[in-house]
Amino acid sequence: MASKIRIALDAMGGDHGPAVVVPGADVALTHHPDLSFVFFGDEKIIRPLLEAHPKLAAASSVHHTDVAIRMDDKPSQALRYGRWKSSMWLAIEAIKNGEADATVSAGNTGALMAMARFCLRTMAEIERPAIAALWPTLRGESIVLDVGASIGADSEALIDMAVMGAAMARIVLGLERPTVGLLNVGVEEVKGLEMVREAGRVLREAHLPGMKYHGFVEGDDIGNGTVDVVVTEGFAGNIALKTAEGTAKQIASYLRSAMSRTLMARIGYLFARGAFASLRMRLDPRRANGGVFLGLRGIVVKSHGGTDAEGYAAAIDLAYDMVKQDLMTKITESLSFDHRAITAAATSTDAA
Amino acid sequence: MASKIRIALDAMGGDHGPAVVVPGADVALTHHPDLSFVFFGDEKIIRPLLEAHPKLAAASSVHHTDVAIRMDDKPSQALRYGRWKSSMWLAIEAIKNGEADATVSAGNTGALMAMARFCLRTMAEIERPAIAALWPTLRGESIVLDVGASIGADSEALIDMAVMGAAMARIVLGLERPTVGLLNVGVEEVKGLEMVREAGRVLREAHLPGMKYHGFVEGDDIGNGTVDVVVTEGFAGNIALKTAEGTAKQIASYLRSAMSRTLMARIGYLFARGAFASLRMRLDPRRANGGVFLGLRGIVVKSHGGTDAEGYAAAIDLAYDMVKQDLMTKITESLSFDHRAITAAATSTDAA
Repeated sequence: MASKIRIALDAMGGDHGPAVVVPGADVALTHHPDLSFVFFGDEKIIRPLLEAHPKLAAASSVHHTDVAIRMDDKPSQALRYGRWKSSMWLAIEAIKNGEADATVSAGNTGALMAMARFCLRTMAEIERPAIAALWPTLRGESIVLDVGASIGADSEALIDMAVMGAAMARIVLGLERPTVGLLNVGVEEVKGLEMVREAGRVLREAHLPGMKYHGFVEGDDIGNGTVDVVVTEGFAGNIALKTAEGTAKQIASYLRSAMSRTLMARIGYLFARGAFASLRMRLDPRRANGGVFLGLRGIVVKSHGGTDAEGYAAAIDLAYDMVKQDLMTKITESLSFDHRAITAAATSTDAA
Repeated sequence: MASKIRIALDAMGGDHGPAVVVPGADVALTHHPDLSFVFFGDEKIIRPLLEAHPKLAAASSVHHTDVAIRMDDKPSQALRYGRWKSSMWLAIEAIKNGEADATVSAGNTGALMAMARFCLRTMAEIERPAIAALWPTLRGESIVLDVGASIGADSEALIDMAVMGAAMARIVLGLERPTVGLLNVGVEEVKGLEMVREAGRVLREAHLPGMKYHGFVEGDDIGNGTVDVVVTEGFAGNIALKTAEGTAKQIASYLRSAMSRTLMARIGYLFARGAFASLRMRLDPRRANGGVFLGLRGIVVKSHGGTDAEGYAAAIDLAYDMVKQDLMTKITESLSFDHRAITAAATSTDAA
């Protein structure tokens, strides 16, 4: 029998805690019967929920802890009271101890990243990890990183993100050579973005085998799906992600109010119900739930804090794919191989 | 008789040149009969178009020039061949010469900003001008700046933008004390954004009479209309604007394909045609066409390059409102008054 894929779950993370995490795991188990889980958190809450899902209970163990990280604490505060003992910390540590292949948490993003860095450490070549998000586009899905792990990035960090994002795209999007673009503004001779132009130059000249470097892309190229991987530093990436979410909600609200204003519109809505349902599904944020932390010595997936069981299952599915297709090895190989080509390209112009 | 509001038009700017600029001016004239125009550009193309609009012709003069700025030239190139003689330059210079109250151009944004800075100069207190865009929201409209005039901004520049954006909001949105927010990421203890936090501290403590400082906002707050004025540096602002445009197009495309896929959906569409028309109107980018350059000694409005006559008229209407309600005086007064309060607030903590 093939060995199980073991996921450590921060059961106390997210707006709803175990009430979403346990049924979410149950949904993921129906997708992937070779999953097993370790739940970290309050046993008194988790056990009764597990009893309602006997199949899941059989594939799970529970590790009790009283300490849970609050959603709005600063990373430094969370580290102070939650290191070594919180459900979030212990779920991450399970990777390090060899008890789990990946960790999923819907908890406080800043705390999760701080603990993951502290506990797992970054890969040798990586200074700062990034958060990669799946972004629904007109062509399917793209990967956008960094959507908020850290603010600002030099050209090396952007290049590393391109390499890691491409490795993730090979797995998640099933592409041999995903296209990669650097997010920029459509203005020539811009100041302050030497790092983006320098990263572009190196990527263009390095001809990396695992990606096809496309060039710069603008904000509207993300939704168009112009490239498979969009690379940017975390401030602009986070603003872009949140702005797109806000715009989608805004248009959905316009649509709802337009469809309920007149009798004719309401009749039309009844006829087109199926079409609206399919539109709703395409816009469903749960389908693309899960931010993958890249650059750490372990696979950590962040779920939206407010998601439901279906959304949480999508985050677990993402972690499952990463483990199953060995993201860590793919990134490590890419980084060590690509770094030789990158160094050559970067050096070539120091002399030019 | 009240004096006319005189608008200088760069007739050669934009993807369609005079073919959109002339009919656009005609539409604006029907909105505001006290408008008059000076068209700068190729007389051989402009005159015949004007003849088709006798009322407009009576309110217009034409200033011939052979030189037009190309849409994709760098600002430095455009300045080299277009200074003193291009339609864009001459339209801007008309403000300086007292021949016009404001300038509208659908031309190359970078060139327009470079020429406007060179010809008109910035206001005494302002180091770098900003571009302010009208953004449709769930509550109505907000003003977002800077959407791409320059990259990066220190805390002083962010504070100046808040003051100028609030002055514009008092005119365009008709509010006595518009709310102002600083765009930020929803992560505590972020690095590299000391300038945003410092600007927030000063705005909070200065208690400026012309605005109500709200605090930080995130990307999704823009579309929600959480505040009347959203302030950010130009890189993130441009990415946010383009990302929102891309998302709106993406959803419109989903909607079209959903509504045409099945017979039932097509029937529903027929019933709800009116509702879809009203939705289309709300999403019409022409309604909010026009980026206002703030911080210059003159009113310059940038229209989208690809807009039609209706959209171009919206940009002229915007310029009209700014002149009619004396944006320049309002900004100058705000800046000189507010700067005392800001200096006091900024100094208070240098000592703290």
